[in-house]
Amino acid sequence: MRKPKIVILGAGYGGLMTATRLQKQIGVNEADIVLVNKNDYHYETTWLHEASAGTLHHDRVRYDIRDVIDRQKVEFVQGTVEEIKTEENRVILENGDIVYDYLVIALGGESETFGIKGLKEYAFSIVNVNAARQIREHIEYQFATYNTEAEKKDERLSIVVGGAGFTGIEFLGELANRIPELCREYDVDFHKVKVICVEAAPTVLPGFDPELVNYAVSYLEKKGIEFRIGTAIKEALPDGIIVAKGEDQVEEIKASTVVWAAGVRGNSIIEKSGIEAMRGRVKVQPDLRVPGHDNMFVVGDCSLIINEEINRPYPPTAQIAMQQGEVCARNIAALVRGKNELETFKFDNKGTVCSLGEDDAIGVAFGKKIVGAKASFMKKMIDNRALYMIGGASMVLKKGKFNIF
Amino acid sequence: MRKPKIVILGAGYGGLMTATRLQKQIGVNEADIVLVNKNDYHYETTWLHEASAGTLHHDRVRYDIRDVIDRQKVEFVQGTVEEIKTEENRVILENGDIVYDYLVIALGGESETFGIKGLKEYAFSIVNVNAARQIREHIEYQFATYNTEAEKKDERLSIVVGGAGFTGIEFLGELANRIPELCREYDVDFHKVKVICVEAAPTVLPGFDPELVNYAVSYLEKKGIEFRIGTAIKEALPDGIIVAKGEDQVEEIKASTVVWAAGVRGNSIIEKSGIEAMRGRVKVQPDLRVPGHDNMFVVGDCSLIINEEINRPYPPTAQIAMQQGEVCARNIAALVRGKNELETFKFDNKGTVCSLGEDDAIGVAFGKKIVGAKASFMKKMIDNRALYMIGGASMVLKKGKFNIF
Repeated sequence: MRKPKIVILGAGYGGLMTATRLQKQIGVNEADIVLVNKNDYHYETTWLHEASAGTLHHDRVRYDIRDVIDRQKVEFVQGTVEEIKTEENRVILENGDIVYDYLVIALGGESETFGIKGLKEYAFSIVNVNAARQIREHIEYQFATYNTEAEKKDERLSIVVGGAGFTGIEFLGELANRIPELCREYDVDFHKVKVICVEAAPTVLPGFDPELVNYAVSYLEKKGIEFRIGTAIKEALPDGIIVAKGEDQVEEIKASTVVWAAGVRGNSIIEKSGIEAMRGRVKVQPDLRVPGHDNMFVVGDCSLIINEEINRPYPPTAQIAMQQGEVCARNIAALVRGKNELETFKFDNKGTVCSLGEDDAIGVAFGKKIVGAKASFMKKMIDNRALYMIGGASMVLKKGKFNIF
Repeated sequence: MRKPKIVILGAGYGGLMTATRLQKQIGVNEADIVLVNKNDYHYETTWLHEASAGTLHHDRVRYDIRDVIDRQKVEFVQGTVEEIKTEENRVILENGDIVYDYLVIALGGESETFGIKGLKEYAFSIVNVNAARQIREHIEYQFATYNTEAEKKDERLSIVVGGAGFTGIEFLGELANRIPELCREYDVDFHKVKVICVEAAPTVLPGFDPELVNYAVSYLEKKGIEFRIGTAIKEALPDGIIVAKGEDQVEEIKASTVVWAAGVRGNSIIEKSGIEAMRGRVKVQPDLRVPGHDNMFVVGDCSLIINEEINRPYPPTAQIAMQQGEVCARNIAALVRGKNELETFKFDNKGTVCSLGEDDAIGVAFGKKIVGAKASFMKKMIDNRALYMIGGASMVLKKGKFNIF
């Protein structure tokens, strides 16, 4: 009898959790497991804002996939997925094809620009390691260039962050710490630097408790961050943005660096492959399978699960992706063993902490609001937990955050 | 009786040597000494190629001027010189005027582009701390950007160095060490990187012993540097250069980074002030004074002294500038004391060492040709000596190079 072949696309939180759980649950004689990923490393998406600001080196944010998979059990293929031929049970890679019996789509999200003109061309997005270090170097290059010009261009020292959601706020927290270092490094007057957060919604961190939001805003404002709330970006330009002002006026904000941190969508490979989705996110069944495709699972940012309490989708997070990976692995193991009763996924929200730089944060943990050093400590524990869940204690020791006191 | 006022323009090797010698030789009751400089720091011009390549931090290359002057005796004015009104004995600064009785022009050199089209706009020059860190960051940004682009632009990884003279070769030596680090940092294939040295003259390091030149070229070639000797740059473009090829053909070399290291001239302030000069360099009298101006001295890159042995000007170096500073200080002290017999400057060439990165070099010292570890050691001793001559032992301890074994 031919062994079934399980193919996992993507080595983010969801994909890697599925792979590391499957390698424990499935014997080498039961199935072949193949993990496909563009890079030979996994990166902590939730830490990319630190690499982007330059407060944490990108090598601290990634690790070799081969360090966490059991190579006796999981075959790793480095390749870029181009399309999934669902009719043929085949994945088309940039250089080669792979057929599967069971497929896990864990391709991660993409930046969503909502059709705003110029964003794709002129704004950066904190989407992966390559992008993060480019943002870091772009900002640094602006500071390095400032003093070389006879006519000083103050917009070189202006950074616009589009979006005051989770990523936007965490990035601002890191920037607030990084800017004084850049000023010292390049002999730049701190008061010339502007960091402006532009958010279309009427509040910072929509969905967060207002008391925590106030704490975050006043903390960041004290560090020099400027907030423009209820302000929509109309267009991005090579040297700034245009925002709406009042009913039908616009205003230009000059800035050599524009970082778009406002939108996440699913993966465009989903749509390209003809799988029904909303902005690249598949509304999965309770067992995490794609409706109508009994051998196809989706986990992570490409999946969409409704939070029944508020009748809105859960936001894509590392926490939900990892929980999905655990259920997905158990369900695939069941299918491989011929069982058809699959487990239902239920998100267990353990809380959320939004960092405000290295030594402050806000959040809810164990049902309690926390701020300051306690929240910052919790944030680092959450970061370390993600390492532990996938890579075990040794990965925590290698890449963990211990600057906790 | 009014005290005479000595004004020194520039705190490079020549100016700072003059100031530190004068403060020892002249009593507070004899004269006022004013030192004018654009920045509040002195930088080691001969180390800028290291800061430009990113192998040495620019803070290691500069020190606070107030750390080496005696503030009881020398007044420091931070300001940018715009013009010297020689008729009025007045220096016009960007914000203010200073009158003088004795003037020392030690304003340093500028990059000379010989009218080659596009060089001023598109090429970098290793001229000061601001420029050096911009070059470092520009190169780093190219590497950071490379992997973010779907269509890879290999010219981002190409660096053209215009000129195989002293600065060009020393910069290439540092780049050769820096490139592998950048490749690791940004996941770039070393074999995609190109560093090309383009030199119009028929040889590398004209004036150097051919045996030493061969050593340098084969050392750098082994590290991946490509030489295009006898090749003139016709034009610099935003993304490369055009060089002459044969009689009347041209060739384009694509490179996102072009560093022009081929020409040095005197300071344009000299010409702007109506002082007779050749490319900004004043042919000074044997006592270092400007012909026809009994109270004006020129030292360093703005002075021109003929080497009688070969009937050509001495190239501008830190060594000659510092020796001039010593003589200039003694001659001014003599004038202040009413003596009219001034000392004649005679350059005492102690040798020349050209570094090839951190751990190799070529040169002539004590009349002997040296290469390898010995030459590299000598180079660091020469660098330390410049610190010692101006700032004493404490400055050597602060900024010296001790990675000598």
